[in-house]
Amino acid sequence: MTQIKVPVVRNILQANDRLAAENRRRFDDAGIFVINLMSSPGAGKTSLLEKTIEGLAGRLKMAVIEGDLQSSYDAERIQSKGVQAVQINTDGGCHLDGNMIQIAMESLDLRDVDLLIIENVGNLVCPAEFNLGEHDKVMILSVTEGDDKPLKYPLMFQLSTVLLVNKIDLLPYIDCDVSKIHERARRLNGRQEIFDVSCRTGEGLESWLSWLEGKVLEVKGGR
Amino acid sequence: MTQIKVPVVRNILQANDRLAAENRRRFDDAGIFVINLMSSPGAGKTSLLEKTIEGLAGRLKMAVIEGDLQSSYDAERIQSKGVQAVQINTDGGCHLDGNMIQIAMESLDLRDVDLLIIENVGNLVCPAEFNLGEHDKVMILSVTEGDDKPLKYPLMFQLSTVLLVNKIDLLPYIDCDVSKIHERARRLNGRQEIFDVSCRTGEGLESWLSWLEGKVLEVKGGR
Repeated sequence: MTQIKVPVVRNILQANDRLAAENRRRFDDAGIFVINLMSSPGAGKTSLLEKTIEGLAGRLKMAVIEGDLQSSYDAERIQSKGVQAVQINTDGGCHLDGNMIQIAMESLDLRDVDLLIIENVGNLVCPAEFNLGEHDKVMILSVTEGDDKPLKYPLMFQLSTVLLVNKIDLLPYIDCDVSKIHERARRLNGRQEIFDVSCRTGEGLESWLSWLEGKVLEVKGGR
Repeated sequence: MTQIKVPVVRNILQANDRLAAENRRRFDDAGIFVINLMSSPGAGKTSLLEKTIEGLAGRLKMAVIEGDLQSSYDAERIQSKGVQAVQINTDGGCHLDGNMIQIAMESLDLRDVDLLIIENVGNLVCPAEFNLGEHDKVMILSVTEGDDKPLKYPLMFQLSTVLLVNKIDLLPYIDCDVSKIHERARRLNGRQEIFDVSCRTGEGLESWLSWLEGKVLEVKGGR
């Protein structure tokens, strides 16, 4: 079975990389900074988006692509914040791919947009393998998932420019050593930016917002 | 791309179902009750295993197959509890399949084993699609993942005989309504057994252990 499966997967990844490169050219031509936001289910992707929209109001113009297996709850949460959002339903598929983003872009008005955030399907494994054309992969790890996660799911840590360690307000009640998360993540990816945050209390979010603003300026400068 | 992908995936699933059926015959012939334990990363699969091993000591003879992307931390945790454990490394693959279980069984001495627990890769999406030959799928949802998860990841809820709602000791500190988890899960799967538990405090675990004992007796009776 492995002999059948491996070449198939490789073809799919290669085809995907071509579409992702096309997406990237469109983003660069339009001067839009794009991130691919990934995490386990329930680590706080949509909450982070809500806080990011609130925090950047009046500072940057955002748009969102929401990936979900089959519902549209998250896109509704985002649209209620007054930001343009498009839903992709993967029909059970475990990750977004470059083609889905091309289709979603047909429904987005990207004029004047500074920042496009693509919220991937909740999954700490598969989304890391599929480029969407993003400038940076950003991952969230909730402290409730435990400090062993970099050891067990290394690929996403290796590929993500930013790690947001979320739900730090819960640290007094759980067995999780945040310094171990930092140390283990840095061993996998020495250049990773790490922000400890709580989307519930707002702690630590300003550093994340400043990072986003800096990146938007870089992309606009490079156009 | 969809036109290429769909038939390939269907072939893989059919090939897998054949291997899973072979596994199931071996389990039934040996009178071993087998569960496929699934959840998001960090929801508490390995902690539940540790508590289950402690709770069933002297009551049932257990063995464990541990699925992980590439490490062996969990198998080591299990073996240190004095239970036979075999590690499967999927080399980045996002789920276990029937073939991996056949290979793992070559390294297990299943004589006198009453209960085999297969801990799947941490992923709330893909593992649900691949039968391993288990009698029952069992899933864990941590309350920290949020009460919207049945709405967003329905397949695993639909297919799992048992839902363990874990980390209920954290409820005072988070925004999660457990009654919504129950109601939404029951709408997807009216016959699902739901146990609210805390692997940290031990709360609620006796009902889960009794369920396992009842199932082991059923399988032994049916042999």
